[in-house]
Amino acid sequence: MKAIILAGGSGTRLWPVSRYGLPKQFMKLDGERSILGRTIERLLKVCAIRDLHVITNEDYEFHVREELRNFSGELENNIILEPVGRNTAPAIALAVKYCLEKLKCRQDEPVLICPSDHVIKPDEKFVAYARQAGAVAQKGFIVTFGIVPDRPETGYGYINAGARLPPQADGKDGFDCFRVERFAEKPDLKTAEKYVASGKYYWNSGMFAFTPGVMLAEFKKHAPVIGKRLEKSLSAMTKDFSTMPNISMDYAVMERSSRAAVIPLKLTWSDVGSWDSLPEVSAPDEKGNIKIGDVLDIDSKNSIIMGGARLIAAVGVKDLIVVDTEDALLVIKRGQAQRVKDVVALLKAGHRKEVMEHTTTYRPWGNYTVLEEGPRYKIKRIVVKPKQRLSHQLHHHRSEHWIVIKGTAKVFVDRKARFVHENESTFVPKSTLHRLENPGKVPLEVIEVQNGEYVEEDDIIRYDDIYGRSKTA
Amino acid sequence: MKAIILAGGSGTRLWPVSRYGLPKQFMKLDGERSILGRTIERLLKVCAIRDLHVITNEDYEFHVREELRNFSGELENNIILEPVGRNTAPAIALAVKYCLEKLKCRQDEPVLICPSDHVIKPDEKFVAYARQAGAVAQKGFIVTFGIVPDRPETGYGYINAGARLPPQADGKDGFDCFRVERFAEKPDLKTAEKYVASGKYYWNSGMFAFTPGVMLAEFKKHAPVIGKRLEKSLSAMTKDFSTMPNISMDYAVMERSSRAAVIPLKLTWSDVGSWDSLPEVSAPDEKGNIKIGDVLDIDSKNSIIMGGARLIAAVGVKDLIVVDTEDALLVIKRGQAQRVKDVVALLKAGHRKEVMEHTTTYRPWGNYTVLEEGPRYKIKRIVVKPKQRLSHQLHHHRSEHWIVIKGTAKVFVDRKARFVHENESTFVPKSTLHRLENPGKVPLEVIEVQNGEYVEEDDIIRYDDIYGRSKTA
Repeated sequence: MKAIILAGGSGTRLWPVSRYGLPKQFMKLDGERSILGRTIERLLKVCAIRDLHVITNEDYEFHVREELRNFSGELENNIILEPVGRNTAPAIALAVKYCLEKLKCRQDEPVLICPSDHVIKPDEKFVAYARQAGAVAQKGFIVTFGIVPDRPETGYGYINAGARLPPQADGKDGFDCFRVERFAEKPDLKTAEKYVASGKYYWNSGMFAFTPGVMLAEFKKHAPVIGKRLEKSLSAMTKDFSTMPNISMDYAVMERSSRAAVIPLKLTWSDVGSWDSLPEVSAPDEKGNIKIGDVLDIDSKNSIIMGGARLIAAVGVKDLIVVDTEDALLVIKRGQAQRVKDVVALLKAGHRKEVMEHTTTYRPWGNYTVLEEGPRYKIKRIVVKPKQRLSHQLHHHRSEHWIVIKGTAKVFVDRKARFVHENESTFVPKSTLHRLENPGKVPLEVIEVQNGEYVEEDDIIRYDDIYGRSKTA
Repeated sequence: MKAIILAGGSGTRLWPVSRYGLPKQFMKLDGERSILGRTIERLLKVCAIRDLHVITNEDYEFHVREELRNFSGELENNIILEPVGRNTAPAIALAVKYCLEKLKCRQDEPVLICPSDHVIKPDEKFVAYARQAGAVAQKGFIVTFGIVPDRPETGYGYINAGARLPPQADGKDGFDCFRVERFAEKPDLKTAEKYVASGKYYWNSGMFAFTPGVMLAEFKKHAPVIGKRLEKSLSAMTKDFSTMPNISMDYAVMERSSRAAVIPLKLTWSDVGSWDSLPEVSAPDEKGNIKIGDVLDIDSKNSIIMGGARLIAAVGVKDLIVVDTEDALLVIKRGQAQRVKDVVALLKAGHRKEVMEHTTTYRPWGNYTVLEEGPRYKIKRIVVKPKQRLSHQLHHHRSEHWIVIKGTAKVFVDRKARFVHENESTFVPKSTLHRLENPGKVPLEVIEVQNGEYVEEDDIIRYDDIYGRSKTA
């Protein structure tokens, strides 16, 4: 079985923690591993390392690479790159093509597609469902995974289950499986209540299992524009990817196909669609509070208080959500967390950096954190991963002091190389070619003090960048 | 007339903005001038520069000096130093002695005593009341200033006005003045309601006007322990200050004296006793919100949202107080702001630095801000005022890099002096004697990167400190 994780989404409904530059799938909800990381971990229990791939786009490529590397060096390159972010149908089509051409996937081998930003527990239950779905897929079905609803949620699409599928999925072994009667869009509350009462409707979790042979046929039949592209080579398909129709898998195929099946999942599932849904994945205490970080609470109730390094003191608050990050704080009434999108829209319209990136910005070679900015100066902590290096570059409007606080740097200034060790420093004058490299085996940490009449990121001219980035961006 | 401002208080009811190291009187509520600064400004309309003094203790001396210097270099040394913080009776006794001995105050010259942390508006009204109080004081009264209550406040003491004082204060010139019938302690709500309804009770504002002759006599009569001390010299009184009884002026003298008078003030007054009282001094907008800082608000009501540099997004909150600072955030239900004291008590018990100091720490020579701390390193921005210098010092466990980002530094390392200009740097090895000085006319700003196995403030050995601080603290 192949497993493909869709990790190209750029949702900001969990702002200020999720931002365009680092969306939900990369959030560490449990403080340890990202949601994507948990998804990789779960799917590695379903398939072999060589059979697990993540599809994403250029913006998130090195984040995904880092997540994969955390598990195994062998996984690091299991990335399928979308040239641009598109909807699920083009992404899945690309993944199918990739499986066939690059992974020599057989036409009848099951392929499992999973979003990267859903929380599912426990892994063991999911693994059993996934295996069952693979078996059903090999009988010619496109299997969807339905979540048994515990409330009349109006924010999800529903799957209406039809006839039971015999005999390999007759419920005797603990599994149910049904033909899909129809897919229902997000309902109003009254309709949702009817769905839940019927016992025949499930939430659409956005996961699929199918064989390439079936999927190629269904694309051809129901989404011929995509089906035609699938007849071409992977490289041709990739080249023309930006002209793919921007539609979802449900819309392109599932709602039209007669081969759709659904397996109801009885496990903990959440798409963590807003801060209001956090209690689905993080258990509240006896007062209904979820507290993460350095929180001092006196008499608060039913509140979510989520911080980082900063101390948060909460007194007597009720039904409140507080999310604190280095450079932005959100305080929102519980039950209204959907309105975070309004905040994000306003910030975006105001070109506020707080909606794009955190104070820490991730780069292929590591990351940097702006510690302080003032007139004519900027102070950064720069972390360079082992064996990585920044581009050869120069700045016309600023000079830079580098002080190594951890590890050893190899520094090129005016093409002269030297090593700078912990507690040593070096100086880079304006308009001088320089490069910073970590030749060692532990992360290099450098404090950079920039001085000059203009200290913005776009005062940079790059030469021979090993990550292929353009000269001035 | 002499004017004395009491500025020794260390209240933390406005935490996290007010802290032990920088209490309420130094807060800039309007973003421009501290409450103490506004008090100085107001009293300079009542008396001459040479007649205005501030009484405070060592901890706040240089803050007060800075505030005074902001007005005039002549004011800078008008400080009466309490050896330790004591209650109002000892402080006022010390001030009276100081006036008589140092300022050659006549026995019948009015002295006006004002707290440093109350908001009073407009100045012109207050000035007229103060002049009137001076005249009443010269008739042999100790004049208190009563605030006409606009609500049955249970947090204040009340003054019960008795017979009208004729003829110089008969209300004809716009002033009322009454004998004090009695001082009433903080009442319960029912009693407070009766007080307000009677029209004969005023809030006790903690301000006084009297002549030294009267005050000496009243101390002698009602608080003989303090009265005895007043017979000695200023230096003897100062030396034994720590053994003064820790009691308030009201308790020591006012409640017992038959010379107490009260002038009702009809003006805007607030002791800004908690975040709940902020609307008394800062007008709410049409939705009842007070927003200070970088606040994005959607549909919030009756809330106080106070931040600094960080972005705060508030959505749909009601009756909430949010106060954000660099290292601590307070979220508290409106109407419960008195409970900040519980937060402060818990933090103090936990030895949390957030209750003592801000990330910026003030020193006689300027200030420093911790930008980041990590294992084996600490990064500070240091500001040295013109012509000021740090002590000659050394550290055994850390070396320091200094990078000048503004101004010019005179640096002594191993007794060798050199100038370090903007955008230049220098290095101070471990266990090496060094000193940082600002020889120039504009503030010097330096980024300091500390490296070492121990980077706490107490790794310091000081030599020849010009501010007289001890060798290792």
